[in-house]
Amino acid sequence: MLSKKIQAALAGSSAIRAMFVEGKELAASVGEENVFDFSLGNPATPAPEAVKTAMKELLDATDPLVLHGYMSNSGYEDVRSAIADNLNRRFGTNFSGRNIVMTVGAAGGINIVFKTILDPGDEVIVFAPFFGEYKNYAANFDASVVVVPPDAATFEPDLAAFAAAFTDKTKAVLVNTPNNPTGVIYSDAVMQGMARILCEKEAQYQHDIYLISDEPYRELVYDGEKENFLTKYYHNTIVGYSFSKSLSLPGERIGYIAVPDEASDSEDLLAGIEVANRTLGFVNAPSLIQKAVAACLEEKTNLDFYDKNRKDLYEGLTRLGFTCIRPQGAFYLWVKSPVLDEAEFVAEAKKYNLILVKGSAFGYGGYVRLAYCISNEKINRSLEAFAKLADVYGLGREA
Amino acid sequence: MLSKKIQAALAGSSAIRAMFVEGKELAASVGEENVFDFSLGNPATPAPEAVKTAMKELLDATDPLVLHGYMSNSGYEDVRSAIADNLNRRFGTNFSGRNIVMTVGAAGGINIVFKTILDPGDEVIVFAPFFGEYKNYAANFDASVVVVPPDAATFEPDLAAFAAAFTDKTKAVLVNTPNNPTGVIYSDAVMQGMARILCEKEAQYQHDIYLISDEPYRELVYDGEKENFLTKYYHNTIVGYSFSKSLSLPGERIGYIAVPDEASDSEDLLAGIEVANRTLGFVNAPSLIQKAVAACLEEKTNLDFYDKNRKDLYEGLTRLGFTCIRPQGAFYLWVKSPVLDEAEFVAEAKKYNLILVKGSAFGYGGYVRLAYCISNEKINRSLEAFAKLADVYGLGREA
Repeated sequence: MLSKKIQAALAGSSAIRAMFVEGKELAASVGEENVFDFSLGNPATPAPEAVKTAMKELLDATDPLVLHGYMSNSGYEDVRSAIADNLNRRFGTNFSGRNIVMTVGAAGGINIVFKTILDPGDEVIVFAPFFGEYKNYAANFDASVVVVPPDAATFEPDLAAFAAAFTDKTKAVLVNTPNNPTGVIYSDAVMQGMARILCEKEAQYQHDIYLISDEPYRELVYDGEKENFLTKYYHNTIVGYSFSKSLSLPGERIGYIAVPDEASDSEDLLAGIEVANRTLGFVNAPSLIQKAVAACLEEKTNLDFYDKNRKDLYEGLTRLGFTCIRPQGAFYLWVKSPVLDEAEFVAEAKKYNLILVKGSAFGYGGYVRLAYCISNEKINRSLEAFAKLADVYGLGREA
Repeated sequence: MLSKKIQAALAGSSAIRAMFVEGKELAASVGEENVFDFSLGNPATPAPEAVKTAMKELLDATDPLVLHGYMSNSGYEDVRSAIADNLNRRFGTNFSGRNIVMTVGAAGGINIVFKTILDPGDEVIVFAPFFGEYKNYAANFDASVVVVPPDAATFEPDLAAFAAAFTDKTKAVLVNTPNNPTGVIYSDAVMQGMARILCEKEAQYQHDIYLISDEPYRELVYDGEKENFLTKYYHNTIVGYSFSKSLSLPGERIGYIAVPDEASDSEDLLAGIEVANRTLGFVNAPSLIQKAVAACLEEKTNLDFYDKNRKDLYEGLTRLGFTCIRPQGAFYLWVKSPVLDEAEFVAEAKKYNLILVKGSAFGYGGYVRLAYCISNEKINRSLEAFAKLADVYGLGREA
C-alpha cells in the first residue's frame, strides 16, 4: 500500500545512511574505537557555549507563550531582522526582515522554494557531484534534475556543459559552494561565468530562471578563503541557509531562505514561500532555536578542529599515493578511486575498517567521499589503515 | 513564475490567518484590549514549568553533540521508547519505540503519512466541518479530499453518508476528535460504526484503507470525558499527534506518528514514513525539544483555564439566544450564524470588535468558529459585545 514514489525512494535509499549503518554494525563487532567512519557529515565539534547560554537566558527571560508560541509562518520579526542586519554587515546586502523566511533547516528551505516555483515537468540544473537528496526534493514536485558534469581537474562546474544543459523547462539552477562532496569552493570567475550564462538563457527563453544557492557550509572555509554570498553575481538568486554546520546544530533543524528585492517578483516569491512553508506541513521553523541562533550570529564553530583534520587527512592520503582534490571548504575530502568501480574500492576499504561513501551516490562515479567529522586522533590512526589499503592497489609511497 | 499549485493556494489562502490579520489591524486602530479575537487556535495558557526545567537540565547535562546532533530520521531511540511506554500505560496499547516516529508537529506527521501512502488521484475521506489545511496536504500529493457531511444536530459524522463516500480510490480516512472546529468528541458508538464500515469497505475493494487519527486535542477534554486513543477501534489506524496544545508548544513543531503492529504492512509503512520524513525535507523532528517532551509526558496544560472559558462562553452565548454546539473538548465553540450566509455575520460581528472565523473555511457554511484561547476576563467582557450583536438579529434574551 505504499505510494509509488515512496517505493522508488525506498529502493534507491540513501547510500550515505546505508554506509553509516554499515559502520555502526562493524563497530558492534570490532569495537567503535577500531572503526574509521567517514560516512556522515555530522558536525564533530560541539555547538559554541554561547548557544547554551542564549537558550538558558531565553528560557528564563521570555514569556513561554512567546518563546514556544505560534508566530508568523515566516518566523519571528526580530529574528528575521537580526539575520538581515547580520548579512548586510558581512556581505553588503540590502535586506530587511521581510526578505528572510525562517525554515526547518536548508532541506526544508529548498523544498519550500521548489514547491513555490516548480511545476510538474520542470527541470533544475545541478552540478555533479551533488548532494543526492536534491533529486528527491525535485521529485517531490514532479520535477527532475539535469546534471552538469564538472571540470574533471578542478571539480568546478564545466561552464560549456552548463550552457548546453538549458531547455525551455529549466526553472532553476541549484548550486552548493563550498561543495558537498568535494570541499571545492567555486571561484569568482566560475560564478561570474555562471551568472553571465544565466542572463543569456533568461533572455533566450524569455522567462525567469532562479539560481538557488544551498549554503550550509558558507562559513566553513580554510586557507584564508573568504566567506561568499552569491546574490552579488546574479539578480535572481535565492539563498537557502542552515545553521547545522556553522553552529553544530544539525538536529535542531534551523535555517532560513533569503530572497533579495532584486529577484523578479520578489513579493510574490516571498508570499508563495510563506504559504509553501505552511502547507507542506512545516508551519514555521522551531521557535526557541530561532531566537537562540539570532543571539549567536557572531558565533563560529571550531574551524581549527576541521582544518587540522583536513590537512592531516589530505596530506596523509596524498603521501600514500591517493589522488585527492584539495578541499578549501566544508568538511569533506574527495578521493579518486584507484579502480574504475569505486564501489569495489569502498568494499575493500571496509576490510580495513574504513567506512567511505561511493561517489555515484553524488552522481559521479570513480571517486569516494570522506567526511572528516571524527576526532583528529582517529584521523591519524586511520592513516595506518589507509596505508594497508594503498598497498592493495600498489600505490607509491613518498618517503 | 510561481507554480500553479502555489498560485491556487495563494488565491484561497487561509481564512483563519486572514481573520487573525484583520484582528491585528483592528487592534492597531481601536486598541488591543478592545478587540475580542477568537480567530486563532493558539494556546493561551503557558507551557508547564516542567518544560523549562527539563530544557535547562538537558542543556546542562547532555553532550551538545548528542542534544543538537543528527539522530535516526525517526527520532532518538530513548524518546520513542518513552512515548511508547507512556501510551501503553495510558491506553493499553502494545507499542515499542519502533512503532513511533518523531515528527515536526502533527502537520508534518500527516504530510509524511500522506506521502507514504497516497498516489496521484487517490482520495482521502474527511468529515465536515474539518481543518481546512487537510485539503492542501492532500493536494501536495495530487490526491483529493472527499467530504462527508455531519449529522446536523450532533456534528458527529453521518455514518450513512460516510459509507456512501467510498470509491476504489479511497486510500485513507482522516478523523479529528476532539474536533477542530466544533469541540465535539466522537462517541464510542460512532467510532465503532466507522470501524465496521471501514472493514466492510476493505473487504469490498480488496485493499487496505487506513484510518488516520489527527490527535492534537487528545488531552483537552472536559466534563469528565475520557482521553481516547483510536487504534482500539480499527486495525489499520495510524495516529498523528502534536504536543502543541497539550503542552502549549505550538511554535516548537514537535509531535509523532504511531503505527501499531496490527496495521497491514506496518514494517513497510514505518520504513516509508522514515524515508518520507527525510525526503520531504523535515529530516528529523527538532532534537532538544524531542528530549524535553519525553521528560514531560506526565505533564498537562492548564485545563481549568480552557474549561472556565468554555463554560462562560457557551453559557453566555446560549443565554443571549445564540445556538451553540456544546463543546466537550479542544478549545473551540461552534456557533450557528443567525443568517444563512455566515460571512455576513462575521462582518457584522467585526463592527463590535468580535473576530470570528466563518464555517465555510472548514467546509461547512452557516456556522462560525470561536477559538476561546483568550483571557477569561476578555471572554466575559466580550459578552457585552455579543449582546449588542444578538440585538442586531433580534435574538431572544433570557432573564
